[in-house]
Formats: sequence, structure tokens, C-alpha cells
Amino acid sequence: MVDIAIIGGGPAAFSAAITARQRNKAVLVCKSFAAGGWLHKAERVDNYPGLIGVRGAEILDLFERQSAGMGARIQSGTVRQILKTEQGFMLLAQDEVVEAKAVIIATGAAQPKTLENEDALLGKGVSYCGTCDGMFYKGKRVAVLAYSVHALPETRFLASLAEEVVYITPNSELARGLDDKVTVLQETPVKIIGQNRVEGVATDQSEIPVSGVFIFRDAMAYHTLIPDVYTENRFIKVSRHMETNVDGLYAAGDCTGRPFQVAKAVGEGNVAAVSASDYLDG
Amino acid sequence: MVDIAIIGGGPAAFSAAITARQRNKAVLVCKSFAAGGWLHKAERVDNYPGLIGVRGAEILDLFERQSAGMGARIQSGTVRQILKTEQGFMLLAQDEVVEAKAVIIATGAAQPKTLENEDALLGKGVSYCGTCDGMFYKGKRVAVLAYSVHALPETRFLASLAEEVVYITPNSELARGLDDKVTVLQETPVKIIGQNRVEGVATDQSEIPVSGVFIFRDAMAYHTLIPDVYTENRFIKVSRHMETNVDGLYAAGDCTGRPFQVAKAVGEGNVAAVSASDYLDG
Repeated sequence: MVDIAIIGGGPAAFSAAITARQRNKAVLVCKSFAAGGWLHKAERVDNYPGLIGVRGAEILDLFERQSAGMGARIQSGTVRQILKTEQGFMLLAQDEVVEAKAVIIATGAAQPKTLENEDALLGKGVSYCGTCDGMFYKGKRVAVLAYSVHALPETRFLASLAEEVVYITPNSELARGLDDKVTVLQETPVKIIGQNRVEGVATDQSEIPVSGVFIFRDAMAYHTLIPDVYTENRFIKVSRHMETNVDGLYAAGDCTGRPFQVAKAVGEGNVAAVSASDYLDG
Repeated sequence: MVDIAIIGGGPAAFSAAITARQRNKAVLVCKSFAAGGWLHKAERVDNYPGLIGVRGAEILDLFERQSAGMGARIQSGTVRQILKTEQGFMLLAQDEVVEAKAVIIATGAAQPKTLENEDALLGKGVSYCGTCDGMFYKGKRVAVLAYSVHALPETRFLASLAEEVVYITPNSELARGLDDKVTVLQETPVKIIGQNRVEGVATDQSEIPVSGVFIFRDAMAYHTLIPDVYTENRFIKVSRHMETNVDGLYAAGDCTGRPFQVAKAVGEGNVAAVSASDYLDG
């Protein structure tokens, strides 16, 4: 059980990690594969006080090293779900379940659009985790919707359980190295079919009947991550203290809305960490 | 007429200046003599991302140089009043009047308590500017309440006009080098006397009848600076975009409330400058 789990790998996440460590909290940063987002590609950032004319990638590297130097644990992997428990939160991270007393979401502004029916059928045949839910589909036919390279190992695992895996991806780069039990379709998923349970997937070209649909993306929509959280104009709604509507859950950085700026994200990460620390200290 | 006047000289002020310059606005930073506040004395700041284990004074110096390097004009002097005009704002700065289309208040958390009756009699005999209002007291008796070294030149000017200046200060350091027309009292001012006009000053030791009272401090209370601005728990009330209730007026940093942190101030300064720039760009 960590004190504060921070989801993200940009300025808001690392600023939160640095301040939470200064407050002597046990900190885990779950850095998604999409972390850093637009900043990775920024050739030059000129308006972050203290650093003059640095590349975005340098800023990310510097902040990450400072966080690690202060004792934050940093692990790679997209967090797919956050569950509220009696003790705090359970995070469904890449390959493990993480328990935390408080959580800071700092996942950036990039949010995939979910498919038609995806939200309605989540937990009713729609899953974001093969290793968690694969056993329910032993001997059945499932679909994998692949938008991330991390679909590949998950698909191999699913192929060891399911009767057949239909692997659907719009991206030919993601359709390599899969075994015979996997049927690859290079098509664009459009909709999940089913009323109260998943019955199939519709793509731009066909309809495929399946019992379960596993979806792998590098980023998660906020309402997919934690359906209880309030959003406003597609961003997470926060107070001036970076509190969300969920007790013990904070948000910082681009995921709370514009402006999308390093300094703004750093400030919000700092405030979120102070608020989370105060919350833990009662 | 500048585009954006920024009042303050700490992390929020300089962060705002840097971002406003990046947006190509004409920027003036009015840096008060109390600027930097607690940060000046901070031996080591460890939780500002990008700078590891630096002294507070180094941070202030670095941020100020970066602001100047980007073309912000920086001048020293406490701003005593902000007036809303049709074109924007007029600032009563140390020795001059500054006109600005938008204003960002970043004056820190230190706020002097005003004296009993001071707010009620502002403009009715209470003034914060000798050079502005001195001519109204030609041949009369006035008091100077001195909490700042800047009371000294103002008092010399007043002594050239008034019949007598009673110079009241609790601080013996501030009672040197004044001429014969100035009566120095080392006492602590307690209250301004008068109903609709100033009639005198009460100290911990005496009551002194005067027609006008000039008060000089290194920092101004927010409601003295601009009486129209809404406050909440003694801090300036702002939206998530750092807007105050006054159109074109923004606030950032410690003056908007806790936590008092460099990163929080930098983030808010950045957001205030983005909002002010958007406001100017229509």
C-alpha cells in the first residue's frame, strides 16, 4: 500500500511526486506509455521559470530524475481502472494491482473517444485487462481491439485461454507476430454490439460475433478510468485545491483543462500533492 | 500605456511576466520593496521542479533575470492604489502613474492590518501618496505614519508644503534625517480620528489633531489597493483562470491563498498571464 499513487508521467505528475516526497509520503508514479504527450515533441519551451530554452524531452527527463532522486518509485504501464475501496483505492496497472491511500490523476489532455456502447457494456463483456478477465472466456471467442503495442502480449495470453481471438486493429504495425489461434483483421472498430452483454463487434467493414471484447489503448478516457469522477467540458472538474468530487482523489495538469502549459501543470501538481498530504495527515 | 502591469516581485509575478512576454505583450513589473517576502530568506527550496536545492534568493534572482531577458520592464516601488478607468487601469506607483490595459496582482500573502477608521476615511483625509495629495494640505498640519523607509522622501516633500508635519513611527530606525518643520513621535498609531473627515490620529500614548494623515507601508492590503476586489478569508478570490471579480484584473500566487509554494505561484502566474493575454486579444 503506497500513500499516494500518481497516474501520469508529465510535469504535473512529477511535480506532485516531488512535493509528496518532500512531505515524506510513500509515492508511486504510474507512468503510462503515452506519458509526456505533446511535451515530448516540443522543440523549445521558453516560459517555464528557471529553465531557459530547453527541449520538452529535457524537461521531462529532468523532472523524472528529480522525482526519483527524492525517492519516488516510478513504474511504466498504463493504469486502466481506479476502484474506490474502504482503505483507499485499487489501481489496475499494467501487470499488477496497486493499492494507495490517495490518488492523483495527471494523465494529460489526450483522451481517446470510446466506441459506441463501450461504456454501457464495460464489465458486461468489455474489458481493459486480459490478465484480469481472460479466465472468464476459456473456450470462447473473443475480440481484441488493438490501439497500443501492449495489445500484443495481452493477446498472446488470451490466445492461450480462448477458443479463438479475433484481433482487430486499424494499424498494420500492430498486427505482427501473433499465432495461428489469432485471426487478424485490419479494420477500424466502430461499435460494440449487444444489449446487456457483449454479442459482437462492428467495424467499418464487418460484424464479428464474440463473447468478450478486450480493448487496449495507451491512454484512458477519464470516465473509463473512474466512472464516478465529475467532468466538465471533457476535463476533470477540480476545486482550487485540486480536489475532485471523490474523497482522496485529486487531479492536476492538462487533464483539468486549459491552458496546456508546463508551469500550470507544475503548479497544479504541487497543490494536488499538498492537498493529498493534508488529507492523509488528517 | 502598457498591456499588462504586474504588481509584485516574487515567483508568481515573474512567471506571469515571462508568459506575457512570450505572448508578445508589453509588460511592466512593479516590484515592491517587500517583494519576494518569505522566499528571500528561504535557505533551500527542494520541491520546485527543475531546480534542485537552491536558495530562495537565487530563485528570485534567476526568475527576475529571465523576465528581463525576455523583455519585461521591471521597476521598483510599491503600488499604492489601482483605479479602474475606461481604457483599463491607472496604477499609483512609487513616483508615477502607470496606465495598463490589464493588471495582475501578485503581491504575496503579507498584508498589513489597516488602522481603525483608515478604510472609512480613505480619500477623506487619509492618503497613501504625498506627491499626489500634498497640495491639498498647504499651510495645514498633517501626520505621517511611517512603516517604511519610503516615508522619508515623502515627508520631506510634505514638509515643503504643510505648516507642520507630525511624523509618527513605532520604529526608531525610521526617524532620522528630518528637518525642523517635522515633529517626530516614536509612538504606535492606533486609530484615525474623525467622522466624515480626518480630525486627528490616536496613538498608544497621545491624540494628535491634524487635517490629513499620510500612511507609508511596504505592502498594501488588497482592499486598500483596489476596494472593489472580492476577497475570501483575507485572500483575493479568483476563478480557476485567475480572474478576479473585476474585468481585466487577475491575481496569482500567495495573495490568492494557500499553499504558499513556489510551484503553485509559478503555475498561477502562468495562468493569469494566459488569461490576461486572451482578454487583451479579445
